[in-house]
Amino acid sequence: MATKAQVLYDFTAEPGNNELSVREGETITITNQSIGGGWIEAQNSRGEIGLVPEDYVELNKPQPSSGGGSVPPLDLSFFDTHVPTPAPAPASNTQSQCNGNDPWAVFDNNASGGFSNNWAAQPEGTETGKNSSNAWGSTSYGHPQAYQGPGAEDDEWDDEWDERKSSGYTEGETGEGGAITRGGAHGSSMKIIGEVGPVWEYPDSQLDCVVADPKKGSKMYGLKSYIEYQVSPNTTNRPVNHRYKHFDWLYERLLEKFGSAIPIPSLPDKQVTGRFEEEFIKMRMERLQAWMTRMCRHPVVANSEVFQLFLNYKDEKDWKTGKRKAEKDETVGVMIFSTIEPEGLPDLELLEVEQKCEQFSRFTKAMDDGVKDLLTVGHEHWKRCTGPLPKEYQRIGKALQNLSSVFTSSGYEGEATLTDAMTAAGKTYEEIAQMVAEQPKKDLHFLMETNNEYKGLLGCFPDTIGVHKAAIEKVKEADKLVATNKITTTEKVTMGKRASTMSYALQAEMNHFHSNRIYDYNRVMQLYLEQQVKFYETIAEKLRHAHSQFTTM
Amino acid sequence: MATKAQVLYDFTAEPGNNELSVREGETITITNQSIGGGWIEAQNSRGEIGLVPEDYVELNKPQPSSGGGSVPPLDLSFFDTHVPTPAPAPASNTQSQCNGNDPWAVFDNNASGGFSNNWAAQPEGTETGKNSSNAWGSTSYGHPQAYQGPGAEDDEWDDEWDERKSSGYTEGETGEGGAITRGGAHGSSMKIIGEVGPVWEYPDSQLDCVVADPKKGSKMYGLKSYIEYQVSPNTTNRPVNHRYKHFDWLYERLLEKFGSAIPIPSLPDKQVTGRFEEEFIKMRMERLQAWMTRMCRHPVVANSEVFQLFLNYKDEKDWKTGKRKAEKDETVGVMIFSTIEPEGLPDLELLEVEQKCEQFSRFTKAMDDGVKDLLTVGHEHWKRCTGPLPKEYQRIGKALQNLSSVFTSSGYEGEATLTDAMTAAGKTYEEIAQMVAEQPKKDLHFLMETNNEYKGLLGCFPDTIGVHKAAIEKVKEADKLVATNKITTTEKVTMGKRASTMSYALQAEMNHFHSNRIYDYNRVMQLYLEQQVKFYETIAEKLRHAHSQFTTM
Repeated sequence: MATKAQVLYDFTAEPGNNELSVREGETITITNQSIGGGWIEAQNSRGEIGLVPEDYVELNKPQPSSGGGSVPPLDLSFFDTHVPTPAPAPASNTQSQCNGNDPWAVFDNNASGGFSNNWAAQPEGTETGKNSSNAWGSTSYGHPQAYQGPGAEDDEWDDEWDERKSSGYTEGETGEGGAITRGGAHGSSMKIIGEVGPVWEYPDSQLDCVVADPKKGSKMYGLKSYIEYQVSPNTTNRPVNHRYKHFDWLYERLLEKFGSAIPIPSLPDKQVTGRFEEEFIKMRMERLQAWMTRMCRHPVVANSEVFQLFLNYKDEKDWKTGKRKAEKDETVGVMIFSTIEPEGLPDLELLEVEQKCEQFSRFTKAMDDGVKDLLTVGHEHWKRCTGPLPKEYQRIGKALQNLSSVFTSSGYEGEATLTDAMTAAGKTYEEIAQMVAEQPKKDLHFLMETNNEYKGLLGCFPDTIGVHKAAIEKVKEADKLVATNKITTTEKVTMGKRASTMSYALQAEMNHFHSNRIYDYNRVMQLYLEQQVKFYETIAEKLRHAHSQFTTM
Repeated sequence: MATKAQVLYDFTAEPGNNELSVREGETITITNQSIGGGWIEAQNSRGEIGLVPEDYVELNKPQPSSGGGSVPPLDLSFFDTHVPTPAPAPASNTQSQCNGNDPWAVFDNNASGGFSNNWAAQPEGTETGKNSSNAWGSTSYGHPQAYQGPGAEDDEWDDEWDERKSSGYTEGETGEGGAITRGGAHGSSMKIIGEVGPVWEYPDSQLDCVVADPKKGSKMYGLKSYIEYQVSPNTTNRPVNHRYKHFDWLYERLLEKFGSAIPIPSLPDKQVTGRFEEEFIKMRMERLQAWMTRMCRHPVVANSEVFQLFLNYKDEKDWKTGKRKAEKDETVGVMIFSTIEPEGLPDLELLEVEQKCEQFSRFTKAMDDGVKDLLTVGHEHWKRCTGPLPKEYQRIGKALQNLSSVFTSSGYEGEATLTDAMTAAGKTYEEIAQMVAEQPKKDLHFLMETNNEYKGLLGCFPDTIGVHKAAIEKVKEADKLVATNKITTTEKVTMGKRASTMSYALQAEMNHFHSNRIYDYNRVMQLYLEQQVKFYETIAEKLRHAHSQFTTM
């Protein structure tokens, strides 16, 4: 008997895994519901049959409002003071009506901590009151939360997608507790302080984590395999396990939430074929480590609830609760600016805002070009160092050894010293060939990785800067809007303040970027040169030894 | 009025010099006899007009019996005991009739010095007496000798070709005196001594010379230019001047005289275009130096009259006299073996002779392959080191400097240390680029030159070995010839002795080759490695300095 089901989320099959790609909204026919392990077998309208995650499909269930992990399109409607903001409207919070047409119209200059609380508690002057739907906190906890029960398999393939078939609500148990533990200081990190120019407020101790110990796991009785990494934050030293898809989920959350203000670099590329090869796993782990380290270093990201959840979830239940909450977070996109407080900094003139924006745009463009140039050169150098160059040294080595063995065949007395020395010299060049071929992994690799990271980061800036430019244009139109009585002068001032806040956020972010850039390039250049010195010294040493074996005349 | 003339020697025109190529035996029409400077203008049968050396042509003069500088075809007729040797028959020595059918039938086992004198004085056993026409000495002096007169211009372009228009004979003045001075010990060097295997008898002190100070000269009132080198032997330290064509003349003489027994390597290539460019002159001089050094090192060559003439001629007259004498030398080709004395060494069995010959043939072939292989690899390495590799280092340098200047544009405070260090690192890679490009001249160059020299030398061996193989074949036929009464048993024994002498000569030559080879490769490998060590040490040092400019974190 054929059961029809509706696809809730896009799912892309991994080749060779008997899976079936499906699209959100598609209707499929379930051909086997008892596969187990979170999978069902289904047939699409084209007659193709394959495995689909059980939780991706549902009979008669309406499509979810916040499906995949894609960034919401940049919504500048919050700048339109006359239209109620449609996009980040909380689905289940009746307070949203109180929000009026301005979700984060003014800034709370109160310097005391707990920004999001103050935000909700202290409406200022003539502005409409802000409500808590814009700060994370209680609103999300009102959503149904999954409870898998104690029998849930710890490492079941798709258990992170199980929340929608939850059988009950356990609101009191989860939520607040976990969130408070993790996100205790998450509000204060959004402050910008200005003693040495606008900078994010940095924590006293730097968060970091170690991504290590990749382990192959399998699901569905070996039908499906995956790699799980241990992530240990320096705060707890307690490892949590995460698969690449969890990192990807985190990335999507961070991008959605912070992408307008903070460049969130992409994760290392997804790769389907060869993903269990040792070399690939090592490389992916290294890149996940670099990505996590960069995220840890960012005070806003590191302190965010979703990031803390990722690093510190106590157990499966905690993880799922936090996941669901993060997915319901409505302080995303440009809304993030409403949570930013430029502490003790005066409002900026539009001209200043514009100049800063242009300056950062020029810089990031120039650096992007510079980084790409270095990557191109580095890539060619890599190819040469691992291809023709060692081949040539090897041929020199072989030619010398060959000549040496011809010499040995001469039958002439007393040339053993020469032939031995020539053979040794030849072998030395073969060793050099190998050194040359292996060297890029020891130095150029890190230079390339760092520049690749920066290429990724810099690639995020055009979007971030685009948000700012659009805001600036809005403010520029304000005079005209005032003249035509479309907005009040007060509203115009408010818009200017918003742009000022955004500019401070951008400046803080650029300063964060610059200090990290200086640190990273200083470190990687030192590493590169250090390894290069060692490389050339070792070659010189080897050749000196080869030289010493010839008779001095 | 058209004057017809007959061409005496081949002459190859140098392009761009208004010269006309002519062939020996060709009849040309003289169109201008008053060009001066040793030149005439002439027209060939195809109507082409150009300058020809005056002395290359003559009216009604018969063709000379020993014309150009080409090696006589290898003449094994001296092995044919029944036919009087036709080739090296002296033209003006009536004693040649006494020579019978065997120009160098037996070896003088008398160990006392002065081989050529003993040769003539002490016929042995049943063999026919040998006459002095086979050793250089008095016979040549009977030829007409040129006398240019005191007014002859010292550096006139073609004065070395003037001898045939000599106006008188001055036999008493020249000849003996110069020859005795120069060739005092030339006979003894042809001995082979056998204490440590057959070796040439080496002089107590090694002859050497310095080729230096190339100077541009011109002839014919600037119409023709040439480069003259100063050649200073270590015996006198008195420089003599020689042009490339003089070296070429010497090469032809040595090849003709010793080519059957001793590989005479070619001179550096003739080059027509760009021959006055500094780089070319330097390179040619270096190669002429290497060639001369190699010839100086060979006891037989170094001690020969013609070589001594080249190094020590007293004046123009002496030079011309010696030149003419050398060109009349009849102890050339296989005749040279008649002057070789394997002192105190027993006759070799044919099998031994054959085995030695095969062994040397195999070795020289194998070494030829090995040397060519190294040259191929070296050539490719040269191209890489002077082409793509430094270009790449330069691009790395530029990319780092470019990124550094982008960083400087950030406006961020306190990154001067990083940007200065990155600029310095970039410049260091540019310096390395230059070092890489210049390095081959400092090390690979000498390895290539040495191997090129050996390639040239080894290229002479097939001919030398061919002479030996042909001789061996002749001896192998001897039994049949005895059986058919074509030769006597005694004559057969004589043929075996000859082959034995040739084999000793080859062994002496191979031992000479081996000892030189060991010396040369030991030296060049040391030089190469020494320079390579310096190169890599300098790079390491530069990079260490670049590294030190970064802030230690």
